Order: sequence, then structure tokens, then C-alpha cells
Amino acid sequence: MSEMKISINMLNTNEEIHEENKNLFDEEGIFVINLMSSPGSGKTTILEKLIPKLKQKLNMAVIEGDLYTTKDAQRIESKGVPVVQVNTAGTCYLEGGMVREASLNFDLRELELIIIENVGSIVATAEFEIGEDIKICVLSVTEGNDKPLKYPLMFEKSRAIILNKIDLLTFTDFKVEEFYEDIKSLNNAKIFQTSCITNEGIDELSEWILKQVKEKK
Amino acid sequence: MSEMKISINMLNTNEEIHEENKNLFDEEGIFVINLMSSPGSGKTTILEKLIPKLKQKLNMAVIEGDLYTTKDAQRIESKGVPVVQVNTAGTCYLEGGMVREASLNFDLRELELIIIENVGSIVATAEFEIGEDIKICVLSVTEGNDKPLKYPLMFEKSRAIILNKIDLLTFTDFKVEEFYEDIKSLNNAKIFQTSCITNEGIDELSEWILKQVKEKK
Repeated sequence: MSEMKISINMLNTNEEIHEENKNLFDEEGIFVINLMSSPGSGKTTILEKLIPKLKQKLNMAVIEGDLYTTKDAQRIESKGVPVVQVNTAGTCYLEGGMVREASLNFDLRELELIIIENVGSIVATAEFEIGEDIKICVLSVTEGNDKPLKYPLMFEKSRAIILNKIDLLTFTDFKVEEFYEDIKSLNNAKIFQTSCITNEGIDELSEWILKQVKEKK
Repeated sequence: MSEMKISINMLNTNEEIHEENKNLFDEEGIFVINLMSSPGSGKTTILEKLIPKLKQKLNMAVIEGDLYTTKDAQRIESKGVPVVQVNTAGTCYLEGGMVREASLNFDLRELELIIIENVGSIVATAEFEIGEDIKICVLSVTEGNDKPLKYPLMFEKSRAIILNKIDLLTFTDFKVEEFYEDIKSLNNAKIFQTSCITNEGIDELSEWILKQVKEKK
């Protein structure tokens, strides 16, 4: 695992860096996913479940965004894929320049998929494109079904939305139908219902990601 | 309910406005709590539980921070206390100037307690003092016990920490002992375990808040 502590003042705008990153990844034929959610929605646990399935089918790597620690990167590394930790030193989102530097730690010619686990934030992360093909976001049922309308940007920009911790649904007052309706009012994202306890939805999500990677080629 | 949409460029720094707010609230003898957490940890639901208890004992008001909607303020208003909604138009934290403007909607001479429910964010909200006497933060057990070390600032700055959704504890892998140890490594905050389903801990929290208000007088 490589570890980076980043505090960069880039001369280029984030939009320009996004384009440069995107061109680089396109040239190398790498599909890039920007995975976002609030802290604790289950991004890292979902990755722990997905990686064993995905890495059988393609060469992948993970970029882990975090404020200060390397806890998540250690969990991902134990799954046997290349991982780079980016510590933002307090900034609650990843920027394009951080992703660029992190990605140069990989042998890009070998890779077909990079998943970037963004810093836990439902607001700021969605404001920055960082070189990704698509955004995927996670909401757990314990967070409440009011979140898409209260924090619309992340949900609007996501190609797929993972409704996680579905095993806890009966212990909450999460209204699934309202959630689907609210998402529909924002965009036509694909919605997956997942549980990392029962593994519900993990196969379906994994297959969908593999299909997106193939379609880019 | 008053509603404000705010987008201000203040000439004074946030630190100066914090001091001005603090002086104003001190002069009026008002205790002010800045309530913070990730989206979905349960801030509004905890307030719904606390308000009926607190308002029997003192005159209180609530300032509700949110990006765009008035959903939370409507919930608080139905509890029969004055509430002002501040919409930050996308900014993921409240600033001192927003709190100043919001508070001028109340009759401050009548009030003994203002609770400010900050925007849902575990990172940015903790970076701004907004005129409060103390910060209280909420973490729900479904978010994971790794959060205090991953996002230390909010926990470091809080006088009290509410561990919420404790009724769901047995369905999660949340390690309570580790959580207490990690908090202890950051500060000596008072920790409350609460459930808004079983009402566990709500009385204790309410009593503690009343004691803080009294001690200021």
C-alpha cells in the first residue's frame, strides 16, 4: 500500500485536471468509478464484498480517500488488489490533482478498473469531478429516506445508487417507495438494494459494474 | 416558522462574528448549543424527543440549518417551539453570520436556550464557531465505531457526544468499548447512549442540558 499525504495548490482548475485525468484513463482503457456517501453508509464494506468478485474478471485498483487515517486502505489491501491511500489532511473531498498523483502509483497499462472511494461526505464530494467515468453513491436505510431531497446533488450526479444495510430496513422507518419516487424526481439512476450482512444485491451490483467496464471498451 | 435563504459575503471574519454572537447571547442570558452530526445520525429526531421535556422547564428556540429544504424545521415547529430555518443554498455548514440573522427573528429577551441544528456534515460543521456555548455531536451505531478517529475534529470539539440508535447495536458490529477508548483519546466529553425508539438515555440527556443552562446563569 502506498500512502500519500497531500496538500497541493494546483495551478490548473479542477475542471481541467478532471479532463486530463479522464483523457489519461481513456487512453489506457481504464474505467473509473467515483464512489461517494456520508461517513458510515458502508462504502468500504461494499468494496470488500465487490473486490473478490470483480478481481476474478478484470485487473483493478482502488484509491482510498480519507482525512487522516489509513484504516480503509488497510482493509482493501487485505483483499489483494493494489490500493493507494490519499490523506486530504482535513479536506472533506478528493480533488482531481489528488487522484492524478495517486493513480501514478499504479501500472496503468495493466488496469481495467479503478474505484475511487471518496472521503465520507454527502455534500462536498459531489461538487468535484476527478477523472471518473461514472459516480456511484451509497445511502444506508438507517440514514433516512429524506436524504435525496435534502442533499440532492450527490444523488442527481450518480449513475447508480446503492441502498445499503437493507437487512436493517424493518428496524427503521425508511420508506422505500418514497425513496424510489424521490430518486426518480432527480434522475434515472439505477438503484441497487444491498446488504453486506446477507450479501443481498452484491452479485447484481458486481455484474452491473462489469457490464459498464465492458461497454467502455 | 420563518424561512431564510442565505448567501452572504460578510466583511467580518467568522471568528469575529462568533464573538459578537456570543456576546449578544451572553448579554441576554441565553445558552446556545451547536448540534452536529453526519446526515441521518438522528439530530432532528433527538430534538423531537428533547423539546417536550426541555420546554416545560425553560423558554427555548431552535435554528435549523439545511441546504435547501424546510423538512426539519416543519418537524420542529410541530413541537411548539419557535424555529427559524436557514437554507445555506448548498454550503455544508452554518456560519456565524447566518446564525446572527436567524436569531434576530426571535424575541431574545424571552429565551434561555437556543439549539442550533447544524447542516448534516461530520467534517465542515466543526470548523466554524457560530456563537455557541458548547458543541454536542451525534454518532449513530450504524455508522461504525471507526468514525471518531477518522473524523476527529467534531468529536474533539464536542462537550457531549450522543451515541444514538443504540437499539440497533446488536444488529451491527459497532464496538462500544473501542468507541469509548477512542473518544477518551480525543477529549473528556460526556457520552450519552440514546435511542429514539425506546427513549433510552433521553431523560438523562435532557437533565444534563438543563444543568448546563442553569450553570451559565
